[in-house]
Amino acid sequence: MKYCFLLIFLFLSLNSFAQNHTQPHLNLDEAKRIADAAEARAKQDNWNVVIAILDGGGHLILLRKMDGTQIGSVDVAHAKAKSAVYFKRPTKVFEDAVNEGNTRILSLPNAVAVEGGIPIFKDGICVGAIGISGVTSSQDAIIAEAGLKAL
Amino acid sequence: MKYCFLLIFLFLSLNSFAQNHTQPHLNLDEAKRIADAAEARAKQDNWNVVIAILDGGGHLILLRKMDGTQIGSVDVAHAKAKSAVYFKRPTKVFEDAVNEGNTRILSLPNAVAVEGGIPIFKDGICVGAIGISGVTSSQDAIIAEAGLKAL
Amino acid sequence: MKYCFLLIFLFLSLNSFAQNHTQPHLNLDEAKRIADAAEARAKQDNWNVVIAILDGGGHLILLRKMDGTQIGSVDVAHAKAKSAVYFKRPTKVFEDAVNEGNTRILSLPNAVAVEGGIPIFKDGICVGAIGISGVTSSQDAIIAEAGLKAL
Amino acid sequence: MKYCFLLIFLFLSLNSFAQNHTQPHLNLDEAKRIADAAEARAKQDNWNVVIAILDGGGHLILLRKMDGTQIGSVDVAHAKAKSAVYFKRPTKVFEDAVNEGNTRILSLPNAVAVEGGIPIFKDGICVGAIGISGVTSSQDAIIAEAGLKAL
Repeated sequence: MKYCFLLIFLFLSLNSFAQNHTQPHLNLDEAKRIADAAEARAKQDNWNVVIAILDGGGHLILLRKMDGTQIGSVDVAHAKAKSAVYFKRPTKVFEDAVNEGNTRILSLPNAVAVEGGIPIFKDGICVGAIGISGVTSSQDAIIAEAGLKAL
Repeated sequence: MKYCFLLIFLFLSLNSFAQNHTQPHLNLDEAKRIADAAEARAKQDNWNVVIAILDGGGHLILLRKMDGTQIGSVDVAHAKAKSAVYFKRPTKVFEDAVNEGNTRILSLPNAVAVEGGIPIFKDGICVGAIGISGVTSSQDAIIAEAGLKAL
Repeated sequence: MKYCFLLIFLFLSLNSFAQNHTQPHLNLDEAKRIADAAEARAKQDNWNVVIAILDGGGHLILLRKMDGTQIGSVDVAHAKAKSAVYFKRPTKVFEDAVNEGNTRILSLPNAVAVEGGIPIFKDGICVGAIGISGVTSSQDAIIAEAGLKAL
Repeated sequence: MKYCFLLIFLFLSLNSFAQNHTQPHLNLDEAKRIADAAEARAKQDNWNVVIAILDGGGHLILLRKMDGTQIGSVDVAHAKAKSAVYFKRPTKVFEDAVNEGNTRILSLPNAVAVEGGIPIFKDGICVGAIGISGVTSSQDAIIAEAGLKAL
């Protein structure tokens, strides 16, 4: 009986110890999984896009430019992801606000008001974001969401 | 009688000399006092914000990022204060103009059209500005004003 | 005896659990303590400097410009701290390398090769950096180190 | 005889037409193959690096940041690849020049004088570049070369 308790506590403490060394963050394997799913979704409709994935500090972890995508989309995808992680909200929130007449948002540094940038949360902490650019902004958002489902 | 004139001229020239060599400015102690008051006001409502205070040349004197504030607010608070000192008017003036349809302001370099940036005047001279970002823009402005009351 | 083991394991697991929810980071209170100590050290010799403290993602948490410091030091202090957190090493390492003839380092983006930027580690993780600029670079470094002792 | 001339002219014009419409470039699949090989080489020695691959216009096609790499390496890997494609030569060429005393190169915009950036040629045309940063510059170059072997 006492061994049973000991084993339970041992398991809990080891488990906690392991978690202790895992602070919520986004790693490259996860970013690849997200990007693979996003790329597969884009290919399904023959859409060409740039996929940008940032960490919680707003630094690039992964970027892919699908063949034929306009070069402007490299910075746009990056900027959408940056807006999402800097303001901890999807760029759609800013897009909706601007559509409702709240154009003043356009003067905020790093704020992008076009759909396609979505923050990524783990345990309530913003660990990064994905940004998509290349097709229409609602299509960009469909791809971003398909990517995040793979996480 | 001639001594009287001499004294008057002496007084005038000394006065001019003194004014010449004393231009109003904002020092670090004053900036700290402003920031302390702003921070206290923010804490009162559990608001997390970035406080940025610039000098009359638009250069940072003080910046504080309260724990948990979105990282995007660092640049936004800075930009609001910069707009306030560059144009010698609160960012609210630009916000109101944009809300009234004057969207062309959004194309002006360094103009921010979101409340929360207020210039600081001494003897009619713009000696700096405060910028707040982190909560809603009207709450940001409440914090900025609370800060300035401490000056 | 078995209670003894139970208590030890209970302690370990609770301890780990608590740590689990505390990811190493630098908060504003710690940044203020560092800045206060740095400022006190600077005042001791009538040195005027800019103190910049960044988080682990390279974003400003705190900045103070002491009265009379040249405005160029605002960006320099910021850049030194950024170099320290971006490359996880003191700017002195790059300074020494350049002094030994390794001038090619000067072409690396964000690398500053002048003493006065020091990274801050907690549990082996780089949680931020301090950057000082205003006096000679070795004096800047003395101030930075005095600041870090307060952590 | 005149048919012979006609055929020759026809062949020449078709040939020119074909060349006209086929310019060598680097596609995403090739970039992934290069990055996979580079990443595998890095893992072999437990090296953590950022891999950046640009197209012939100097725009990002692919970027990967391996877990644990210093954030400064994101910009450095990008800058090395940019230097390689902008000047159509490995960054090692600039490094060697600087090491031989040619420090004036450090004043050239976009020139990086640290090994680890290599241009990619197809049929004598520069179609892009790879840039690696994270370990020592000679190790970065080993990884870059391992990547290019996969092309």
